[in-house]
Amino acid sequence: MERSLGRYQGLSWMSGFVASSQVLGLAIIAITGVWMGHFRGGFAWEGALQFNVHPLCMVIGMVFLFGDALLVYRVFRNESKYTSKIIHGTLHVFAFVIALVGIIAVFENHANSKIPHLYSIHSWCGIAVFILFFSQWVIGFALFLFPGASNAHRSRYKSLHVFFGIFLLTAAIGTCLMGINEKLIFSLGNSYSQLPVEGVLANALGLLLLAFGVTIGYIVTRDEWKRPPLPEEQALSMDFKTLTEGDSPSEQ
Amino acid sequence: MERSLGRYQGLSWMSGFVASSQVLGLAIIAITGVWMGHFRGGFAWEGALQFNVHPLCMVIGMVFLFGDALLVYRVFRNESKYTSKIIHGTLHVFAFVIALVGIIAVFENHANSKIPHLYSIHSWCGIAVFILFFSQWVIGFALFLFPGASNAHRSRYKSLHVFFGIFLLTAAIGTCLMGINEKLIFSLGNSYSQLPVEGVLANALGLLLLAFGVTIGYIVTRDEWKRPPLPEEQALSMDFKTLTEGDSPSEQ
Repeated sequence: MERSLGRYQGLSWMSGFVASSQVLGLAIIAITGVWMGHFRGGFAWEGALQFNVHPLCMVIGMVFLFGDALLVYRVFRNESKYTSKIIHGTLHVFAFVIALVGIIAVFENHANSKIPHLYSIHSWCGIAVFILFFSQWVIGFALFLFPGASNAHRSRYKSLHVFFGIFLLTAAIGTCLMGINEKLIFSLGNSYSQLPVEGVLANALGLLLLAFGVTIGYIVTRDEWKRPPLPEEQALSMDFKTLTEGDSPSEQ
Repeated sequence: MERSLGRYQGLSWMSGFVASSQVLGLAIIAITGVWMGHFRGGFAWEGALQFNVHPLCMVIGMVFLFGDALLVYRVFRNESKYTSKIIHGTLHVFAFVIALVGIIAVFENHANSKIPHLYSIHSWCGIAVFILFFSQWVIGFALFLFPGASNAHRSRYKSLHVFFGIFLLTAAIGTCLMGINEKLIFSLGNSYSQLPVEGVLANALGLLLLAFGVTIGYIVTRDEWKRPPLPEEQALSMDFKTLTEGDSPSEQ
């Protein structure tokens, strides 16, 4: 009784952290929207305003949706593993498509403005993270959703997949922080050091991005909040363990 | 026999990762030294060159020594826990002092050059990470080295301490990446987009910082590489468990 009460309280803490992460995530999107929409002139797919699509798409795709995809196994803990995998993979597809739109926006903007592509450390990190994210998605799909892979391969790769997922979210947030710094220096010039409202807003956006990352990171690394296997999965995994260890189920 | 061979092979993999992290760490320090020493005019504690002390100290203190402090429990796995704690805490003291020198350098440089303090997102993140690092050190010292704390408090706080340690290293690396981006834009201006040697070098430094972070992160998050308790610690922790659970050692 005490044990299950403890578990219940643990999960209600988790719900609090998940709710905070969503508030932070929506705040990040809203502030990026206000920054680009109000302070930088709004959004368009043509002309100079095309750049403004880039920060908004990267924050929605590579931060908010990416982060939420990591939470799927915690939040949908009573759904079947297959359902969770589908939601996890689908959120990443949305993240990928939205981030791709954001990347196309900045490439077209650079081409139209005769700015060289991929010269800054922000762009180097960004393109590396995006390629690694795509690779991780393809490998994840092939191993965890495509029916061919063996359970042994899956369980061996799983901890790597989890580690690189958290690393890529972290690196994506780091890349956003560099992007904020770069954009503020280019747009505000010397007045950035006087901290006008736009500077304070975008600096605060950076701190909120860090807070979002640390909240998601905390939720997904707590052992006690891990999704426990459903009863039918537990039976299956015991059968599998028995088979691979070469014992019959009746043996100790 | 097979099991211990597997464990031995696991540890030799770990040694490979630790060696790689040290090569990466030394490369980061060397490249920062070359960047500031060769491309930015060298080091001095007076005048404009005082700024150049800042990146070098932050990279040595908040990245290399901080990262190495996290490895102590993996590398000195056969030392007593107390010895490991002393090495871990001492490395962090060196990290703190060197980082403090780096922070003083940039504050004095800003004061002398009439540049406002703490306006950029780089500086906001940097100062937040430094304050949190100091707080984590003080709490860690009070709980894990000072004799007063109970084992129950220690074990409850430990996972938080580990999580925030990894988070702070990650945030420190993110702050360095912003610093690199900022410095390149300020120093190279428009020529940054033509990627001169200095730009390529400093961009590569950014990628190496990411690689250092991911290598350290990987080593310290592998369950199978965790320091196993020494035989005498195992006996102690069983006594403690028995005492707190209210059973006598002879009971099942």
